[in-house]
Amino acid sequence: MGEVKLVGTWVSPYTYRIKWALKLKGIAFDYIEEDLCSKSALLLQYNPIHKKVPVFFHGGKPICESMVIIEYIEEIWPHNPLLPTDPYERAMLRFWIKYAEDKGPSMWMVGEGQHKAEQNSLEMLKIIEEKALGDKKFFGGDNISMLDIVLGLGHWLGGEKLLEAHKLHRLHVWLKNFKQVPVIKEDLLDLDGMLAYLRHQREMSPATH
Amino acid sequence: MGEVKLVGTWVSPYTYRIKWALKLKGIAFDYIEEDLCSKSALLLQYNPIHKKVPVFFHGGKPICESMVIIEYIEEIWPHNPLLPTDPYERAMLRFWIKYAEDKGPSMWMVGEGQHKAEQNSLEMLKIIEEKALGDKKFFGGDNISMLDIVLGLGHWLGGEKLLEAHKLHRLHVWLKNFKQVPVIKEDLLDLDGMLAYLRHQREMSPATH
Repeated sequence: MGEVKLVGTWVSPYTYRIKWALKLKGIAFDYIEEDLCSKSALLLQYNPIHKKVPVFFHGGKPICESMVIIEYIEEIWPHNPLLPTDPYERAMLRFWIKYAEDKGPSMWMVGEGQHKAEQNSLEMLKIIEEKALGDKKFFGGDNISMLDIVLGLGHWLGGEKLLEAHKLHRLHVWLKNFKQVPVIKEDLLDLDGMLAYLRHQREMSPATH
Repeated sequence: MGEVKLVGTWVSPYTYRIKWALKLKGIAFDYIEEDLCSKSALLLQYNPIHKKVPVFFHGGKPICESMVIIEYIEEIWPHNPLLPTDPYERAMLRFWIKYAEDKGPSMWMVGEGQHKAEQNSLEMLKIIEEKALGDKKFFGGDNISMLDIVLGLGHWLGGEKLLEAHKLHRLHVWLKNFKQVPVIKEDLLDLDGMLAYLRHQREMSPATH
């Protein structure tokens, strides 16, 4: 079936998407932590366009972009599916993934603009809760789907507190359930560590944006 | 197989993606031209999140977002495939689609910022030509793929002239070939009409952005 390898970093939320998808399907893989300070020759060789992690390797062949990698994983190992089998349900899930992906990046801003980002984030989360989650346990129903993985990054910087404060009860319960799934629990994104790292990077940066 | 219906507008490039995909697969469909001035009840009901065309209906069920619609069409009608059958080749094509989609919107700017947009556009096109097209007739090889459809919108406002001026010879030949495919030829995007319409809208708009 070919060697499975993942190059990522602990501060890249997108790296976690791939880890989670592989673990949910029980696929063994080698994980290589990329040096944040000097981009390795491996990374530059295999992702010359974006020079970013994660880079996924299957049988020696590289794939970049987290959602492209996850679609590939789903096609190669269709068990424990991350997309519904019904084509219409698949399309609905893909619609919400695109919605979350388009709205998501604004939520990663730290410092100035954070209030605006939080407002956008809240608006998105309200719509997602009402239209996509409803009364289901996970976005995929009883099981974690690609959309759960996308949203599970802790896109909302405030996490559970923010969901509680803004009465997003169903999302709050969802986040608790998500974190309790064993393969997620053993590989939770270190949000605090990541934010501290990003703040440090920002302070070290000679220019302000 | 259920009724197939498309709600679009002649000024929406994304509408053409769906028309082309359906025609390439020989799927009969009803086309409903949306009134640009008053968004119809149909549109507001079926795309409440974005309130945008295209909206695709299959057996009465609506789907929004052009790439989500095209993935659905590919799953329901797999003949005359728009994605390669090999999973790795599919992933590569999806990578380039994401790349073109992420870089694409800047190219739609008219007026101020156009120079910057053109620079971004050129950079993207050079990379696409070298890395994704190479010496193939279409991005899909001998046949049109999802990536050809995405790029076929005439993302570069200057079209053939721009490709010629910047010595993007292989893309220039590709664009000529693309336009000669019968189903594309009979339903070409009216770029000049669209730009004139957008300029008119801009002049009528009370605020400048």
